[in-house]
Amino acid sequence: MDVEEYRQRGKELVDFIADYLTGIRARRVFPAVQPGYMRPMVPDEAPQEGESFQDIFEDFQRIVLPGVTHWQSPHMHAYFPALNSYASLLGDMLADSINCLGFTWASSPACTELEMIVMDWLAKMIGLPTTFMHSSKDSKGGGVIQTTASEATFISLMAGRTEAIRTNKAAHPNLNASEINARLVAYCSDQAHSSVEKAGLIGLVRMHYLESDYETLGINGETLSQALKLDREAGLIPFWVCATLGTTGSCSFDNLKELGQVCLKENLWLHVDAAYAGSAFICPEFRHWLEGVEMANSIAFNPSKWLMVHFDCTAMWVQDAGALHRTFNVDPLYLQHENSGMAIDYMHWQIALSKRFRALKLWFVLRSFGVTGLQEHIRKGVRLAARFEAMVASDTRFEIPAKRHLGMVVFRLRGDNELTETLLKRVNSSGKIHCVPASLKGRYVIRFTITSPQTTVEDICTDFHFIKETARAILANEELKDIPMAPARKVPLGETRLRNSHFGTSLLLANSPMSPKIVNGSFAAIFDSNELFKEFTRRLKLSEVDENSPAVVRRRLKGMVMCGKQFSLDSRMDVVSTMNLQEKEKTESDSDSQKSLPCMPESPEQENSSN
Amino acid sequence: MDVEEYRQRGKELVDFIADYLTGIRARRVFPAVQPGYMRPMVPDEAPQEGESFQDIFEDFQRIVLPGVTHWQSPHMHAYFPALNSYASLLGDMLADSINCLGFTWASSPACTELEMIVMDWLAKMIGLPTTFMHSSKDSKGGGVIQTTASEATFISLMAGRTEAIRTNKAAHPNLNASEINARLVAYCSDQAHSSVEKAGLIGLVRMHYLESDYETLGINGETLSQALKLDREAGLIPFWVCATLGTTGSCSFDNLKELGQVCLKENLWLHVDAAYAGSAFICPEFRHWLEGVEMANSIAFNPSKWLMVHFDCTAMWVQDAGALHRTFNVDPLYLQHENSGMAIDYMHWQIALSKRFRALKLWFVLRSFGVTGLQEHIRKGVRLAARFEAMVASDTRFEIPAKRHLGMVVFRLRGDNELTETLLKRVNSSGKIHCVPASLKGRYVIRFTITSPQTTVEDICTDFHFIKETARAILANEELKDIPMAPARKVPLGETRLRNSHFGTSLLLANSPMSPKIVNGSFAAIFDSNELFKEFTRRLKLSEVDENSPAVVRRRLKGMVMCGKQFSLDSRMDVVSTMNLQEKEKTESDSDSQKSLPCMPESPEQENSSN
Repeated sequence: MDVEEYRQRGKELVDFIADYLTGIRARRVFPAVQPGYMRPMVPDEAPQEGESFQDIFEDFQRIVLPGVTHWQSPHMHAYFPALNSYASLLGDMLADSINCLGFTWASSPACTELEMIVMDWLAKMIGLPTTFMHSSKDSKGGGVIQTTASEATFISLMAGRTEAIRTNKAAHPNLNASEINARLVAYCSDQAHSSVEKAGLIGLVRMHYLESDYETLGINGETLSQALKLDREAGLIPFWVCATLGTTGSCSFDNLKELGQVCLKENLWLHVDAAYAGSAFICPEFRHWLEGVEMANSIAFNPSKWLMVHFDCTAMWVQDAGALHRTFNVDPLYLQHENSGMAIDYMHWQIALSKRFRALKLWFVLRSFGVTGLQEHIRKGVRLAARFEAMVASDTRFEIPAKRHLGMVVFRLRGDNELTETLLKRVNSSGKIHCVPASLKGRYVIRFTITSPQTTVEDICTDFHFIKETARAILANEELKDIPMAPARKVPLGETRLRNSHFGTSLLLANSPMSPKIVNGSFAAIFDSNELFKEFTRRLKLSEVDENSPAVVRRRLKGMVMCGKQFSLDSRMDVVSTMNLQEKEKTESDSDSQKSLPCMPESPEQENSSN
Repeated sequence: MDVEEYRQRGKELVDFIADYLTGIRARRVFPAVQPGYMRPMVPDEAPQEGESFQDIFEDFQRIVLPGVTHWQSPHMHAYFPALNSYASLLGDMLADSINCLGFTWASSPACTELEMIVMDWLAKMIGLPTTFMHSSKDSKGGGVIQTTASEATFISLMAGRTEAIRTNKAAHPNLNASEINARLVAYCSDQAHSSVEKAGLIGLVRMHYLESDYETLGINGETLSQALKLDREAGLIPFWVCATLGTTGSCSFDNLKELGQVCLKENLWLHVDAAYAGSAFICPEFRHWLEGVEMANSIAFNPSKWLMVHFDCTAMWVQDAGALHRTFNVDPLYLQHENSGMAIDYMHWQIALSKRFRALKLWFVLRSFGVTGLQEHIRKGVRLAARFEAMVASDTRFEIPAKRHLGMVVFRLRGDNELTETLLKRVNSSGKIHCVPASLKGRYVIRFTITSPQTTVEDICTDFHFIKETARAILANEELKDIPMAPARKVPLGETRLRNSHFGTSLLLANSPMSPKIVNGSFAAIFDSNELFKEFTRRLKLSEVDENSPAVVRRRLKGMVMCGKQFSLDSRMDVVSTMNLQEKEKTESDSDSQKSLPCMPESPEQENSSN
């Protein structure tokens, strides 16, 4: 492709993208494809000779686009937002064309300097103390754009570990680094994101999950203090605490001020994971949750979620960049000196050596929308969520088991978890709406997140109407119209963990640290239950084995999908769809699209538990 | 910005990018800015109201572009290539507009499936065994796109660590995980990239640097075997080896076949870091270096370097994905089953939960160029490097201290290191060419890498002419025209380490594990020496302290730039440029642009060593 073709094709793509984004409401939000759909559509190897852009782009439309989950759709309510915007797209076009690597100041000065500047801008926008800013004369800290919140959490844990080993070596000269490391313990809520657990696993430090309050789903200072006391008595060395502002399961908030006071007193590294909620802190009315942040050592949130800066872009700040440097190789000498405006080498702030010029898209977005424009966007999302909450609350068949915060509502059908699970699968299998579930203290809930700036009141009315109609059908079929209030019994942490296995294996569970280790992308959240189970077991030749042995059934089912290659549990859809096709060949007459969806139990445990 | 403005601006940007990339030869490759240049040009905070795209784009051109190091320039010979291409830019435009997150199959099926497919394509293109491919029925492995080679190395180390702890727990039930971890030892060449050292630091495992051969600058099986024997005798547990194919300093190659045989015998995890050279393996004539790869557990290279897929895009393959899963949370059950074509969840293959849809740009590039087109691109780069090598070899003032491989030539002026260092700084300060240095067994060399597909024979002739003219001027000034051959004395590893401090602190040194811990982006590589030192020390009020105390001098100088905030050593340019401006105010008559560049010693140690 020569430059003249690039000029032509690039402009065509701009129009295509404009059409895609404005017309996205009409698309099926979750694609109607099954695992392995793509491989038969493409050659086994790269072409020997170059192909025309026409061919490539046609394949993109024919092969790729039908398999995309459309995160920009107004009917996308799953996970958290992952938005783009025209300003972000344009900024990144320029960054990609320059394609400089920013590891040191000199590797591309503008890349480092613009990042320092926009990170200071963003710090001011959410009201961080000046000690987190580069430009502040008395600050040893500053901001950096990381790839993901997972990475920010891990880096924070590593920095805290470095400091803990240093401090404890000085205090206990008889201990060596690995002895200290073996006794380190970190803390987070049982509602924290799975990336906190992952950070502990990679960092080889134990993670202590603190039981969140049953009502607020947050943790407070007292809970932490008690855990610290017990752990210290057991000879462990507490060193790092993660406070979550806006949990994945229910957008709940830990009490940052109380945790901060404990961490300050006990000399623990305090990290604030505000991956989703952080964007909302640009509105002063939501900033109260950030109270106490001056006692935190590090904080991160994702402009790549709600601020319309497309992925990847995680804003992370630290109060002492020295801790990062000591973690990543450099042991600097310290002297008092004023340094405002000078250059830094971001290679010492991150795991990777190189980084993309991500500051550019962030700069474009902040300037194009302005603070007011971004605040309006956040507030509109919150208003829509409140509106949806009101709709749900007005229908007595539903309950909202956790207080709504910001742009996310969690709700469920009153009664057994299975009802809500069935509802979610039916809703998702339509492709009209996409949601994912969460487990809140033993209750299966549907998370409904407002994501797209294109979402309107009409959209969420349509969505709720569809949810209600689906619920009606489920309740009618099962003759369970009058369901009593679910008892609000307190479920202890241990029991929650046991109960989790009953929820099957859905993504959102995988995002919580207490979830089963074997996770399923969304199979459990998409397909309906039990109908084909007998046929399924027949095909698996399970009839040959002792059906009274649940262990055998479990192992065969898990083994099918978790063999040597560790396939997604989604893979089961493959097996089922094959069966389904064969069913169809047999019957041919079934034109009901609901029934033509493959159905099977999403978890062998569940089947067993109903025995 | 509404969609109509996006249509207009997007198309304007396509033309701008086309003009930028085709006109890049005329730009100064390294910018004429100094640390902190940008902050006075932009407001202290984000605008309250949104700004027009016109204003934003004008600022981009006025403020950002003059501070960019132009990695796409035909005169960019620093680091390794980091190329883009029209196909890559177009693919990424589409990925950005979709902006899906690929953590599980279901989060966007096309994202996962296309990645599996293109990684298989790429594996075939470089001739990897089928056990590294997803599509192979008997394979437990597959490919994944990571963010950087640093991350791939770290993940490989973690996976190796997990396996080592597992194996050793079984073999020595009396040891616990942290005791095992404390005794683990990993291996790499003294020429390996700094990210290998960083991986060991983060992973809390010791790294044993094996002395590379003085001639080939690679390590072999015998070197590894000896180290293993000694370390085992010392009670350590060897577990992981990194073989580098194409080192940063000289593009040297470790003997993969020999290392593989040792690792197989000794049950060590073998990782292959082919970050740069990996792209060349698409040409069969360069694939002999890959011999033995069937014995490796993991391998990574960067299509984001030489294959014109813009950053970030690191291709990584493993033979047993189970090891990654066990590292990142999942402990799967194993059963025999054929699974070709099924889905996987990439969240278990990486540190982060989420990932970008990077497969799209890779797919566009592979199809747009075809294998033949990419081979031609690689071969052209190698031919140009050979041509440059011949030019250098024909001039007796220069020497080529390490064999040229692929697209990189290392050369130096015969004689003391200081001569070559001066040459590099003069060349770089012109902004016409950009190179970085390396330290090869005590010899300071200039690395000259062919990067851009736009580079022509005329370009490198121009470049070498300029280098020769600069060298002539230096040699004439210093009356050192007839310099004897540098003695090829073998320098032991320990001595190399000592000598490194004399090289000051340049980026490439920072990329090698044996380099000083305090690194300098490129200050050392850009500015000339010593002239302003007295004035500089006066301003620092060093006259007040005992100048006979090198420690005091060192601490003050380092402290200036490495204070609590850990600024880049490039920051010193700031101080110097202030001085320089004041000098200019005094003299006003100096119109020589060379002289107007700030000058100072790049390393306090160096100043001390000349005392």
